[in-house]
Amino acid sequence: MEKIGFIGLGIMGKPMALNLIKAGYEVSVLASSKEAQALTDAGATIHESPKTMAEANDVIITMLPDSPQVEDIVLGANGVIEGIDAGKLYVDMSTIAPSTSKDIYQKMKDKGVEALDAPVSGGQVGAETASLSIMVGGNPVAFERALPMFKAMGKNIVLIGEPGAGQTTKACNQVIVGMTIQAVAEAFTMAKEAGVDLEKMREVLLGGFAQSRILDLHGKRIIEENFKPGFKIKLHKKDLDIALKTGESLGVSMEGTAQVASQMTKAIEQGKGEFDHSALYLMLQK
Amino acid sequence: MEKIGFIGLGIMGKPMALNLIKAGYEVSVLASSKEAQALTDAGATIHESPKTMAEANDVIITMLPDSPQVEDIVLGANGVIEGIDAGKLYVDMSTIAPSTSKDIYQKMKDKGVEALDAPVSGGQVGAETASLSIMVGGNPVAFERALPMFKAMGKNIVLIGEPGAGQTTKACNQVIVGMTIQAVAEAFTMAKEAGVDLEKMREVLLGGFAQSRILDLHGKRIIEENFKPGFKIKLHKKDLDIALKTGESLGVSMEGTAQVASQMTKAIEQGKGEFDHSALYLMLQK
Repeated sequence: MEKIGFIGLGIMGKPMALNLIKAGYEVSVLASSKEAQALTDAGATIHESPKTMAEANDVIITMLPDSPQVEDIVLGANGVIEGIDAGKLYVDMSTIAPSTSKDIYQKMKDKGVEALDAPVSGGQVGAETASLSIMVGGNPVAFERALPMFKAMGKNIVLIGEPGAGQTTKACNQVIVGMTIQAVAEAFTMAKEAGVDLEKMREVLLGGFAQSRILDLHGKRIIEENFKPGFKIKLHKKDLDIALKTGESLGVSMEGTAQVASQMTKAIEQGKGEFDHSALYLMLQK
Repeated sequence: MEKIGFIGLGIMGKPMALNLIKAGYEVSVLASSKEAQALTDAGATIHESPKTMAEANDVIITMLPDSPQVEDIVLGANGVIEGIDAGKLYVDMSTIAPSTSKDIYQKMKDKGVEALDAPVSGGQVGAETASLSIMVGGNPVAFERALPMFKAMGKNIVLIGEPGAGQTTKACNQVIVGMTIQAVAEAFTMAKEAGVDLEKMREVLLGGFAQSRILDLHGKRIIEENFKPGFKIKLHKKDLDIALKTGESLGVSMEGTAQVASQMTKAIEQGKGEFDHSALYLMLQK
């Protein structure tokens, strides 16, 4: 079995790394991580830097907040790229800019290292129950090599295409989810102000073309005014920024996405950044 | 069985009236209708005006393009209201402004006539196969009276609430559908420009939070670039105008809806008003 170095033990990364250990992998983590103790208790070993970790392992997986953190850990001083050798595999499961993924892919390729972008969806629950959706960009052979590891962390695992294609797909997911939440929020606010029973409306609309998982789950959250995350507005805003930058670089007009991102910025400014993204509904209340 | 006068024999109204005849109802239509012959061939009788039709029938159903046509037929010279008597029932199945529905409800009420607003969703196919969703506003007793007729035309039939509540729910349906199409259109355009396989992306996204009937059906239309309606952009634009006016009258901010309506206006100006609403995708292409 391949030896894995796992970097990024946050709400998502910690249960993902624990699932790799449960699946029988030898996992190592960085000494600097706040959650290193929890992982060593479960059997992980410790490394001092991404560089030494990359020297000692076959596969390096990162699960970090955003592009700058990934660039720092991978390309920075004592970064992964300094320790990784030809024949090893680098897998980034963070949600970052497709352009950054492609850049890292090329730099790894130059060293003879395969890289995959493999962002996930499914949230904390998906991470804990090893049922994440994993959208992968990269080489099919590298994908097959990573597949047993992905299966220890997720269920709906698809090789979408070229390097960066996983990140592009994730950005599209976040665009659709964000705009669908905004749609449900506008409709529910209008209905509430008109005195319509929201629960009855939700049920009828779920039977027609307006049906969506968002109308079902986030519609319920809105009706119950339960905005405990779930997925935080501030993180969704970061993902929409990635989508908007990607759209801009491709010359694609994304007015709807920009409008939702702007609502999210206002929500963050009002101190609602830690709320579930369904709390976009609150931005429309009088 | 109650005698029904049916006004508005368009793409939707004609099969709905035929389904009432099939269910055994005695149906009459207006002599002025282009499709009167098709209905009389099926057994319908003819009346010269909405007034005489209302005098001779127990229930009047209208299925017209927009609020002004409904107001004209119901409240205009020789209109339904001049011929209808206490104890009869008026059912409007058009998609019109909730405020117009409430106004007509009140005017009918003043004459001792019950009125229901009962807009539908499901399109031409739903009308032809008697499988429309019907969202109803009005009095529960009037709803029970109309239910056998609704069952001859539809399947998912729900009394939502007070007069106007059916129209408000339909407006909400159109808001959610419009914004979800825009979401899928922006995401698919970005993915296409980035070189991502749209069919693979659609399949992965259908497994997660981005899932919607729109991503499924309209996503498929977009991939196949099949923009034969379906539901025309110009009609959806009319419905979003109703939603925007309703939102304005309630003091509800509907920026996302306004943005989609503006895209639809541009599409109509470019001669795409007769295309299926999934053709919003075309507005984003370079």
